[in-house]
Amino acid sequence: MLQVGNRMQFDSLDDIRAFCRDLPNGDASAADAAARRQQALTKPPGSLGRLEELAVWLARWQRRGIPKLERVTIAVFAGNHGVAARGVSAYPQAVTAQMVANFASGGAAINQIARLCGADLRVVPIELDRPTRDFTATPAMDIDEFLTAVDIGYRTVPPGSDLLAVGEMGIANTTTAAMMCAALLGGGAERWAGRGTGVDDAGLLRKRAAIDAGLDFHRAISGDPLSVAAALGGRELAGIAGAILAARHHQVPVLLDGFVATAAIVPFARLVPGIVDHCRAGHVSAESGHRALLRELGLDPLLDLDMRLGEASGAGVAILLLRAALACHAGMATFAEAGVSGAGK
Amino acid sequence: MLQVGNRMQFDSLDDIRAFCRDLPNGDASAADAAARRQQALTKPPGSLGRLEELAVWLARWQRRGIPKLERVTIAVFAGNHGVAARGVSAYPQAVTAQMVANFASGGAAINQIARLCGADLRVVPIELDRPTRDFTATPAMDIDEFLTAVDIGYRTVPPGSDLLAVGEMGIANTTTAAMMCAALLGGGAERWAGRGTGVDDAGLLRKRAAIDAGLDFHRAISGDPLSVAAALGGRELAGIAGAILAARHHQVPVLLDGFVATAAIVPFARLVPGIVDHCRAGHVSAESGHRALLRELGLDPLLDLDMRLGEASGAGVAILLLRAALACHAGMATFAEAGVSGAGK
Repeated sequence: MLQVGNRMQFDSLDDIRAFCRDLPNGDASAADAAARRQQALTKPPGSLGRLEELAVWLARWQRRGIPKLERVTIAVFAGNHGVAARGVSAYPQAVTAQMVANFASGGAAINQIARLCGADLRVVPIELDRPTRDFTATPAMDIDEFLTAVDIGYRTVPPGSDLLAVGEMGIANTTTAAMMCAALLGGGAERWAGRGTGVDDAGLLRKRAAIDAGLDFHRAISGDPLSVAAALGGRELAGIAGAILAARHHQVPVLLDGFVATAAIVPFARLVPGIVDHCRAGHVSAESGHRALLRELGLDPLLDLDMRLGEASGAGVAILLLRAALACHAGMATFAEAGVSGAGK
Repeated sequence: MLQVGNRMQFDSLDDIRAFCRDLPNGDASAADAAARRQQALTKPPGSLGRLEELAVWLARWQRRGIPKLERVTIAVFAGNHGVAARGVSAYPQAVTAQMVANFASGGAAINQIARLCGADLRVVPIELDRPTRDFTATPAMDIDEFLTAVDIGYRTVPPGSDLLAVGEMGIANTTTAAMMCAALLGGGAERWAGRGTGVDDAGLLRKRAAIDAGLDFHRAISGDPLSVAAALGGRELAGIAGAILAARHHQVPVLLDGFVATAAIVPFARLVPGIVDHCRAGHVSAESGHRALLRELGLDPLLDLDMRLGEASGAGVAILLLRAALACHAGMATFAEAGVSGAGK
């Protein structure tokens, strides 16, 4: 799987399966060193709560007892969806490209958040002029199209990054995400279809009907997660998955954004649940399926702010929490340094 | 109540009662302007969730449609408590002064967090060498001592501040906070006493016993919130309350920290529930009574990270969320500016 020139990262679904069978893990001794340092800092043990856990998690995946957040990347993948023709979104499909232009000119929420949290924003539109096909009656992508999108995502992650946050933009993609969850996790359209950007009651019914149709049409492949990711997924979801795989390869910790970004990893988590070990959920969104999805993946979100914008906005805000965790971890004095008495002294 | 020279802000509890009867309110038209702007920005309406609400809240109290976060103050009040002699804390009382020294030399969590979030840190120790008296057998403070501490807190808030975050340090002060909650909100020691910095089972029993004794001894004043604040409170809690009153006077929005900082405002909320309108709860701490206390006050915490350190650490981290809210509010393009289609177009 060495990347040579323009050769694809993965030539087949079997290549991905092999990758997922042999995932690199974090550095337990770096994590232990970080945990020991947390015990020595001037605070009651555990009193920084999840900020302590985050410092140890960063240490594990960055393989150093005192991690850094100097090279932080926010990757936002964009794609278009044939299922949009079924009237499942409150917005026209043109908005995907319009929002990519808005990202480019700095006017979107994620531009402000990326600047605030000191991250490099990479926007990766994937063939916006070639929407996936409508999954209710045909595969959304063939395997080559899927692998191409995974490859684009994989190449987005700079080796040596300290942190990656992933998000997306794509009109109708909460339908695609709900479709993948329904196919791989069960519970039907009812469980996973929410209002996305704000679809009305009639639109929500159309959304559920599209998912039910997709479940029906693709029943034969429902036992094969990667085939589901191709036939029922989307290009930006495949890109996110590729980026998360690359981050694992390069030992880069990952913050997931909302429902769509989280759904993107589900096919891979079906292959090997540990694929999310280097990931944290930046937030739980207001999109109705996200909380259940995080529970399925064993992810405990850092923020719960009723956000439902996508474009990595929730993950971006969560980067600020990582900065707080790291500032305390790296900058605080120990009991010994500060001459502060410990418990029971 | 004009402040002239060294004259006290409040000469009597009646002065405070009069202040609380005539609270200045925020600016509804600034809030409306902020809410209208949120509707026009390039995102589905409401999709930034609580970040939108926070921008509108800042606008209301700063009296401008696009608020600022240039002059941000974190005030940490410290005090010592006679009830510490009852063995209610895992740490010796000397730690209060040691941690104040740690704040001064920059080694504590709040120093790192204040630097990260761009806040001016003011540490205000109040007569650490003169602990309050043990409330189990006598009033903790007399009225003059209480008013002096309120006054110190009141003077801590610079007029023209954009935001105030309040926190505390004081060995045994979760016992004091639980005492005030039990006296003013009911439910007994069981409901409000938690493990604080990490007291063991025997210490927790001593803590509950102290609170029960305090309830018993001071039963006669339980209907008078401000007398409770003096007789069962602490100097740093009174300081926090003074700062919150000053913030209200100067129309400065406030972020509360954990259980102790929130308990400090309870006596005033008993006088007039609207006293917390200019406050938001930065987080809900892991200290067991905090969630119930926030519910009593109608406050919905911004963060839930299992923190229980105090010293304004949770409120400090929440400042980062306000910065994210403001960055989006002030920096995003509108649909018209960006040429993005709206819903249903």
